[in-house]
Amino acid sequence: MLSNVLTRIDQHIKTLGKYTSTPGKGTTRLTYSNEDLQARNYLKDVMRDYGLTVSEDGVGNIFGKLAGEVNGPSVLIGSHFDSVPHGGDYDGPAGVVAGLEVAKLFQENGIKPKYPLEVVALVEEEGSRFGGGLMGSRSITGKLTDQTFRELADSQGVSTVEAMKSIGLNPDLVKKRDRDTMKAYLELHIEQGPILENEKTSIGIVEGIVGLSQLEITIKGKAGHAGTTPMDGRADALVMAAHMIAKLPKIAETYGEGTVVTVGKLSVYPNGANVIPGSVTFTIDLRSTEEAKLKTLLEETQTFIRQLQSEKISISIAEQLYMSPTILDDEMKKQLEKGCEKYKISYQSIFSGAGHDAMVFAEQTKAAMIFIPSKDGLSHCPEEWSDHQDIEKAVYVLFEAAKHLTEVN
Amino acid sequence: MLSNVLTRIDQHIKTLGKYTSTPGKGTTRLTYSNEDLQARNYLKDVMRDYGLTVSEDGVGNIFGKLAGEVNGPSVLIGSHFDSVPHGGDYDGPAGVVAGLEVAKLFQENGIKPKYPLEVVALVEEEGSRFGGGLMGSRSITGKLTDQTFRELADSQGVSTVEAMKSIGLNPDLVKKRDRDTMKAYLELHIEQGPILENEKTSIGIVEGIVGLSQLEITIKGKAGHAGTTPMDGRADALVMAAHMIAKLPKIAETYGEGTVVTVGKLSVYPNGANVIPGSVTFTIDLRSTEEAKLKTLLEETQTFIRQLQSEKISISIAEQLYMSPTILDDEMKKQLEKGCEKYKISYQSIFSGAGHDAMVFAEQTKAAMIFIPSKDGLSHCPEEWSDHQDIEKAVYVLFEAAKHLTEVN
Repeated sequence: MLSNVLTRIDQHIKTLGKYTSTPGKGTTRLTYSNEDLQARNYLKDVMRDYGLTVSEDGVGNIFGKLAGEVNGPSVLIGSHFDSVPHGGDYDGPAGVVAGLEVAKLFQENGIKPKYPLEVVALVEEEGSRFGGGLMGSRSITGKLTDQTFRELADSQGVSTVEAMKSIGLNPDLVKKRDRDTMKAYLELHIEQGPILENEKTSIGIVEGIVGLSQLEITIKGKAGHAGTTPMDGRADALVMAAHMIAKLPKIAETYGEGTVVTVGKLSVYPNGANVIPGSVTFTIDLRSTEEAKLKTLLEETQTFIRQLQSEKISISIAEQLYMSPTILDDEMKKQLEKGCEKYKISYQSIFSGAGHDAMVFAEQTKAAMIFIPSKDGLSHCPEEWSDHQDIEKAVYVLFEAAKHLTEVN
Repeated sequence: MLSNVLTRIDQHIKTLGKYTSTPGKGTTRLTYSNEDLQARNYLKDVMRDYGLTVSEDGVGNIFGKLAGEVNGPSVLIGSHFDSVPHGGDYDGPAGVVAGLEVAKLFQENGIKPKYPLEVVALVEEEGSRFGGGLMGSRSITGKLTDQTFRELADSQGVSTVEAMKSIGLNPDLVKKRDRDTMKAYLELHIEQGPILENEKTSIGIVEGIVGLSQLEITIKGKAGHAGTTPMDGRADALVMAAHMIAKLPKIAETYGEGTVVTVGKLSVYPNGANVIPGSVTFTIDLRSTEEAKLKTLLEETQTFIRQLQSEKISISIAEQLYMSPTILDDEMKKQLEKGCEKYKISYQSIFSGAGHDAMVFAEQTKAAMIFIPSKDGLSHCPEEWSDHQDIEKAVYVLFEAAKHLTEVN
């Protein structure tokens, strides 16, 4: 492992990290923003430099294609290049960069594959601008229709189409790919958790991706003056929410490892120091590696919450998202293990607690993922960091897998 | 009780209610805003019409003076005329209007008092623009110094002085009144609670005003990805806050009637549905009619919170406010009772759970307050409503007390 791979990884990560609207306060690269355009132009330049043919689709996903001997389905490799607000330099870009460097190794080694190799750089995986998330992959696979895409707008009311046009993209280009054009999908992502670092393992071969559900709970009590409403005459929405939030982790823990519950977002109304909260809205994020557990947990959580409803306090529950757990392709996992063994890179099986574009592709083609360690398990924050030597190791493992996948029928 | 008092009350309340920056969404009349200026001009016109000599002080408090036979200390009567955002038409204005109508009764009955009567309309009782609250009364009594006043600014960075000048007020006028210029202070206020309505009583004679303390609690845990951080590896600031908020009402209840605890304001950071909350800040408002209880409650609350601190979660507590309970003047209460009896108006003793300007005046002069019922106990909301016939009854009770106070030595 000599090569200039590491130097180039440093260069890519550093350059992409500069394209942020919040310099000094983490990476904020929203889809179709000026920073998206800067990153996009950089990626397209590198793709061309690496001998790839560049194209974009009708949502702005970028493809850099190395033609195969046959005009057959492509092996896709990549990840997304948008970020959360005040996020880090690795969530997404590490996988795009790895894809680029795999293509570069094809070029350096003069490999003309049988089937095409396509480096993909996907938009709006985080959903930070238009909500929902996984927009690029859902568009490619047809789960997000052209019509629905056109109806989406950001919090300022700017539509996807207006936003695309503002950076010179063409929303009229084709969006969905025929599934016959895809042979396999490979993705590197940072772990965003502490497991690989704790185990001192360089590569995690992703066994599957958790199933997840998201609920939005709205509690309506009665606002009132903090000084003039006796304790026994209150319908305090925040006290009710607190009872729920304090209990949820205890429920989750009974499901054992692989099941988690999080209340991440909460708002109080009217939110005045001397006003009893009249209403509270919060989200519950529920995840499990096993679908049966996820379903039971979801049922138990909803039952627990509903039975707290009273004459004075009403509670509503909206299920905003449900995704089954994804099991990734066994044959591809074996190829990735072989690559690790060939280069004597430590690896282990791992489950992904986060959703990824690979989970969307997995519905239409063979898909596999590898993780690299995240320092202190941190992600979605400016402190997010992964060792570039781990990205380099991943590039070689992915290179072996890509060589294999572009050759076999 | 025939007179035109009721008609005039209707007119005043209706007119003042029009001076809002959020028409259709409650009364929002911030200090030194355009709506303040409109209300101010109306009140000054009415004062002149009622034969009062109008003046303003260096913070914009308005005084309408009926001269006495002797140039001695004045009997003050009034309340504040600012509002909370999206508040109601009664919190403050009802008391100013009552003061005006007492003066009108002096005029109609041709009463030339021995000591002067002054109707007062106070600024920024709510603290909605410059924080802290009770600004008008604290300035008059010297608790808020000229220098501190000049250093205050609103959330947009506009200073008190700039804001005053923007509506033509003069911040260089005198602010503090000598305590020898004040003989007594009388205030009508809406109850802002359910007691009088439940008891079907028209007038509450305020026994005292609760003591109160406000704490700000900051909990720092560790943010992390909701899907990738195992339950046992979390330091979730919101779960910790929930444990506290769920427990506080139970603590308050052990102190019995007259003691309340409220968490009204809470913010979560970073507040993303798929991010474990890294930090949470919330306020605790603690009140009690008895100082000994308030102090014990404050100590118990802080001890309870501090013992939850752990290696993974740090907690800080800032005490932002402490005010002892106020007991109002016994002799004045008796006068108010007499007035109720004279007009056969139902009354009862009541404790005020909210702070009022009367509590500030009580430190320098004799002070008393009466409450009228609030529909459904509501206040600080557009639905805030009090029966104008109750305001009328209060006017007669206050008229009797004012006649007495302006005559006796």
